[in-house]
Amino acid sequence: MPHKLVRMQRADAKVPVRPVMLAIAGDSAAGKTTITRGLVEALGPERCTAVCVDDYHRYDRAERRDLPFTVLHPDCNYVQVMEQHLQLLAMGQPVLKPVYDHRTGRFARPVLVEPRQFVIVEGLLPLHTKLARACFDATVYLDPPEEIRRGWKVRRDTAERGYLAEQVLAELERREPESAAFIRPQRAFADIVLRFAPLTGRAVPAGTPLSAELLLRPTIKHPDLDGVVPDGTGSGGTGGGSPAIHLRLARDADGRPVDALHVHGDAAREDSEVVEKAIWSRLGADSGPPACLGRTREGQRTEPLAITQLLLVYHLLDAAR
Amino acid sequence: MPHKLVRMQRADAKVPVRPVMLAIAGDSAAGKTTITRGLVEALGPERCTAVCVDDYHRYDRAERRDLPFTVLHPDCNYVQVMEQHLQLLAMGQPVLKPVYDHRTGRFARPVLVEPRQFVIVEGLLPLHTKLARACFDATVYLDPPEEIRRGWKVRRDTAERGYLAEQVLAELERREPESAAFIRPQRAFADIVLRFAPLTGRAVPAGTPLSAELLLRPTIKHPDLDGVVPDGTGSGGTGGGSPAIHLRLARDADGRPVDALHVHGDAAREDSEVVEKAIWSRLGADSGPPACLGRTREGQRTEPLAITQLLLVYHLLDAAR
Repeated sequence: MPHKLVRMQRADAKVPVRPVMLAIAGDSAAGKTTITRGLVEALGPERCTAVCVDDYHRYDRAERRDLPFTVLHPDCNYVQVMEQHLQLLAMGQPVLKPVYDHRTGRFARPVLVEPRQFVIVEGLLPLHTKLARACFDATVYLDPPEEIRRGWKVRRDTAERGYLAEQVLAELERREPESAAFIRPQRAFADIVLRFAPLTGRAVPAGTPLSAELLLRPTIKHPDLDGVVPDGTGSGGTGGGSPAIHLRLARDADGRPVDALHVHGDAAREDSEVVEKAIWSRLGADSGPPACLGRTREGQRTEPLAITQLLLVYHLLDAAR
Repeated sequence: MPHKLVRMQRADAKVPVRPVMLAIAGDSAAGKTTITRGLVEALGPERCTAVCVDDYHRYDRAERRDLPFTVLHPDCNYVQVMEQHLQLLAMGQPVLKPVYDHRTGRFARPVLVEPRQFVIVEGLLPLHTKLARACFDATVYLDPPEEIRRGWKVRRDTAERGYLAEQVLAELERREPESAAFIRPQRAFADIVLRFAPLTGRAVPAGTPLSAELLLRPTIKHPDLDGVVPDGTGSGGTGGGSPAIHLRLARDADGRPVDALHVHGDAAREDSEVVEKAIWSRLGADSGPPACLGRTREGQRTEPLAITQLLLVYHLLDAAR
């Protein structure tokens, strides 16, 4: 990220301390809430403010029926107000945030959001504009394969938002051009790109958790994992003969060099713990890493999710130092 | 006003032009809406944005029942958010303003407010904090005698907000300590203090409009009325033998020197027009002053209200030059 806000020490009680700001961008049902929930639990809710920027919709559900675009389109959102609020939060100021009720599709009473030490901003468009991006200390883009995300969205929207599966699939199709035009381009502005997907090229038992691929871009300083995580470079495909956790120098889809950290779904807890302790020790902390990491929506612990969340916790704590 | 924002010319379409900001502060039913409506009509609705800052209530009517303070108390309002929004508007930015529905006593969907050339901000507490005051080019405090205001409030709240007269009077009593503590101190920060009241010391026929006393503080540059408005200095009390419109060097209640412009309720239209044309000519305008000024809630034209509104229109146009 080229522009970072300078963090200031609290000189007196009247000068608000600037919080650490993390963005988690991604399409609908890409897993933003699951990641965010784990971070808040690990850092402690009393130190975290989680903000969903999908409340800045310009139109309610009934109004959108007559409009030629979906909620993914910037014109369907008060992007300028979102930018203002992100800037205010980054400066330690409270905002009066609009509230969109996903159950009713209508706007409810706004709420006051006061930034605590860590502000985690998730949503469809937090990295859409330069002004918004400049507010963050670290940025994440969730990039699951489309067929995985489709399954997650159908499951959630039928269970929690009162839709039928056919409706969800039709909506996904309607949104696709805007997803390509406005959501996916945000991937280019992320410091970390996360992809949870089944392991390819290796047979694993049914019920094996999804693997994680973490693209660590050199736009922020990541914890040095040299000598801790085996180098998977040259050992063939994504699965192949590589160890279950490995780091590989790679090229991103756009050709840029990137460190690719792979955590296979069947990685052993012991192997994962070695990596977790190594990441954690880089912070100079006395105690061990938080024990609550890696819980899926179903409450099950997975090693790929645990390492992913720990890396993000690392960046939040590192930025606060 | 010690702090004024520097106005900038539009360099390109992306730099918003800073609007001219006028504050009209005063207690409930002091006449803020009547003054504001006349200004918007005179300047043209397409050039004006009127904002009521009483929508920044922190609690709805039901929640306030259990609270030890009334809506006049700063703790009952998101004062910091009001400050933010005034600053944003002053810089030409839109804000997503909360909406409090006076009929239901509940919060409705927020609205986007985009500042036009003139932003007129009226409400209970727009001059409460230094940061808020710094946003305005000119500030007005409405200071009617309490018995007049009580009558206005009973009439409005019974007719438009579904209260009984006894309820309104009880509420006024409950609010009195907070009115003294938070509303009336704003008078000290106004460039212009307006008092509409019956003429004292002179017998006038029933139905004569209220007179206006305009205290013009030397905190902003008022139009030079020397040689246009007769000097009433030394001619005795508020009414006495003075001409129906006169200017008098006086001391404010706090001892500060001030120009006091008096417009009696029975001032003749011809006398008023001479003064209006004089004020208007100070702007170097080709056409005459707006014809729609001075309309009361009942639609009747009064000379005291016409001259008052024209003076405020003068300040808005002068600041825009």
